[in-house]
Amino acid sequence: MNSDFSPLAGKAGRESVRRHNLGLVLRAVRDEGEATRAGVAARVGLTRAAVSSLVEQLLAGGFLSESGKTFSGQAGRPGTVLKVARTGPAGIGVEVNIDYVSVCVVDLAGTDRVRLTEYVDNRGAPPAEVLARAARIAARALVSAGEQDLRPVQVRLALPGLVSAGTVRQAPNLGWRRVAAAGLFGKALAALLPDRPALPVSSENEANLAALAELWFGGLEGLRGFLYLTGEIGVGGAVVVGGELLRGAHGFAGEIGHVVVDADGPECRCGSRGCLEQYAGQSALLRAAGIDEDAGAAGVAELERRAADGDERALAALREAGTMLGRVLSGAVNLLDPDAVVLGGVYRGLMPWLGPAADRELASRVVSGLWSGEDGRLRASSLAGDAARGAAAGIVREVVADPVAYAEA
Amino acid sequence: MNSDFSPLAGKAGRESVRRHNLGLVLRAVRDEGEATRAGVAARVGLTRAAVSSLVEQLLAGGFLSESGKTFSGQAGRPGTVLKVARTGPAGIGVEVNIDYVSVCVVDLAGTDRVRLTEYVDNRGAPPAEVLARAARIAARALVSAGEQDLRPVQVRLALPGLVSAGTVRQAPNLGWRRVAAAGLFGKALAALLPDRPALPVSSENEANLAALAELWFGGLEGLRGFLYLTGEIGVGGAVVVGGELLRGAHGFAGEIGHVVVDADGPECRCGSRGCLEQYAGQSALLRAAGIDEDAGAAGVAELERRAADGDERALAALREAGTMLGRVLSGAVNLLDPDAVVLGGVYRGLMPWLGPAADRELASRVVSGLWSGEDGRLRASSLAGDAARGAAAGIVREVVADPVAYAEA
Repeated sequence: MNSDFSPLAGKAGRESVRRHNLGLVLRAVRDEGEATRAGVAARVGLTRAAVSSLVEQLLAGGFLSESGKTFSGQAGRPGTVLKVARTGPAGIGVEVNIDYVSVCVVDLAGTDRVRLTEYVDNRGAPPAEVLARAARIAARALVSAGEQDLRPVQVRLALPGLVSAGTVRQAPNLGWRRVAAAGLFGKALAALLPDRPALPVSSENEANLAALAELWFGGLEGLRGFLYLTGEIGVGGAVVVGGELLRGAHGFAGEIGHVVVDADGPECRCGSRGCLEQYAGQSALLRAAGIDEDAGAAGVAELERRAADGDERALAALREAGTMLGRVLSGAVNLLDPDAVVLGGVYRGLMPWLGPAADRELASRVVSGLWSGEDGRLRASSLAGDAARGAAAGIVREVVADPVAYAEA
Repeated sequence: MNSDFSPLAGKAGRESVRRHNLGLVLRAVRDEGEATRAGVAARVGLTRAAVSSLVEQLLAGGFLSESGKTFSGQAGRPGTVLKVARTGPAGIGVEVNIDYVSVCVVDLAGTDRVRLTEYVDNRGAPPAEVLARAARIAARALVSAGEQDLRPVQVRLALPGLVSAGTVRQAPNLGWRRVAAAGLFGKALAALLPDRPALPVSSENEANLAALAELWFGGLEGLRGFLYLTGEIGVGGAVVVGGELLRGAHGFAGEIGHVVVDADGPECRCGSRGCLEQYAGQSALLRAAGIDEDAGAAGVAELERRAADGDERALAALREAGTMLGRVLSGAVNLLDPDAVVLGGVYRGLMPWLGPAADRELASRVVSGLWSGEDGRLRASSLAGDAARGAAAGIVREVVADPVAYAEA
């Protein structure tokens, strides 16, 4: 209860107040897009002189840029226009998933600047080999970023399974157990780029990062809470409450793919039986529709095509998977009462066929008729919500919150 | 994102700073149990003079009491001893459940001072009649509180089902739909006590309040999050994260009793089929054990007796209910990754027989072997965790946080 004991008269030193205010000013400019010093001063409640001094420091550090253009905004007096820098500090996200690696570089404004995706099957190969390949792909993206004068300050890995403190505790679909992923990746990347200082490497569960990308870029900022599911070879999930990820005691919350549908159902790679993944994962869906379950993205495209053509077997497979999804989701909604459930990954394109079956289950099983099935609470994710972007944008948000921590030495 | 824009130099007026600091001092005394002015000053980081002035105001308002006893605590200099007042402002909680009404009065120190429970079957009677009876019981407890010089400042109703803004949207086991419970109760209570000002009446789901009581009095303050289940005629639930209830978009989170176990199972009063309540609620348990399902508390006592005597049918019923509980809990644990799952209500006494079966399911179904079944993460609730106490203590915590709002006119 110590947090109760913080008198209003803060004891923060001048330097930490200045550091806090630098982030305040940088966020204000980012949120406005374009702003004058006077406009920023009005918005953050500091004096014009204080803001000018903070702006000079942010310009010198390469966090802001200035144009000669004058601008008479809400604060009246014209002035030169400030923007968040389109060069300099940036974030790089690297999603290593079952059958692809995707790299994204995001600038301080939150804009995608480089995207490189390679479709490779990462199952079966030793983790060090998979991570070395991911490092090679990331190194190529770093070259592109450098040509655009972007300087990523950190790499964040997006990984399937249970991820904590740089380590993958278990990723059943990759066949990984206790893999020190951040360390292996960092070492491989440093070996590829001997002439530059090593980049810090962090890591996070991919569904968590995709949910954050959906929150930040998919228009969900107004929601009090949502549940995010991503259909891949596995079924990942994340819970967002009050604009923050719910991480749980070990950082492993959101594992909706391993909620049991049928206690005596087929064995799951996680060691349990009858998990949702066995009914609504990509492989189960393709198999039920009569498509090669290892056909990957091409198989999913084929499933969409067949469903659009009215193929009965494809439609039945999607209805069945949607029903199982809806059944598990109804339990999660009864437990969490979220504003919305967002379906990403392969579910996004399959929503026209999966969605109605899932909504029917939700409408009949969510307590007190709180789910009408027609209120749009079950929705497809936006295209914005992918894990690599969430990883890169998360780094950038940390830079904007505390630019001093990321100033060039 | 406006909350980002609060400069460290607060603009709060002197009066609101003083109000904040009054709560700070009152909490400090409550947490210490006994304290001197110097000790409080050291703890909250205000000057001795400022604390003395705040203490005078709290003494005058009846929030603190002082004894002549001198005391040389951590701050060195002896002084008179301050305690939270054992008379004056208090909270009263009234749990209206399926087969009982329980009233609790808690003083500012968080101690139970009056408890009155009546075992009455509230099913079938019109809601207004049930609430009028609850008001009569509460009025008797208020007489006892008055004799102890306690002055409850608010009544909080603890109600089963979906509760929001004073209204029970649905309480299937009571047969209530859209009952304006707080209004009906307040009117009935005011009619019984015509000579005193009407007490404000608030309301909350009973499992949420029981979970808060468990958090505050059951030694769970150190946990990052836990899931609370209460076995009654219904199965209620609550999710606590970071010391706060997770309420959800409509305030209806925690309805674990209506998570589906078997999609084609028996009809539930909520309108769905195969909900957990149909397998692990009190009635289902008694029925499976061959005991009259309407026998209430006596039936539960009989079930405990039979299980302790090794009665095979009782043991099988408890194993089966424990298995179903464990199955649903494994899904909730995969989704939320809580530190602990706490079982209250009738489950508390039945833990020796229910617990192992539930733990077995959890150990085999929680991802990555994170549930060993031997780590005590599944536990019986303490005796402290009941809803009426949580309701009363919640009021008291609000008084302590902002005593000015509750000062006598």
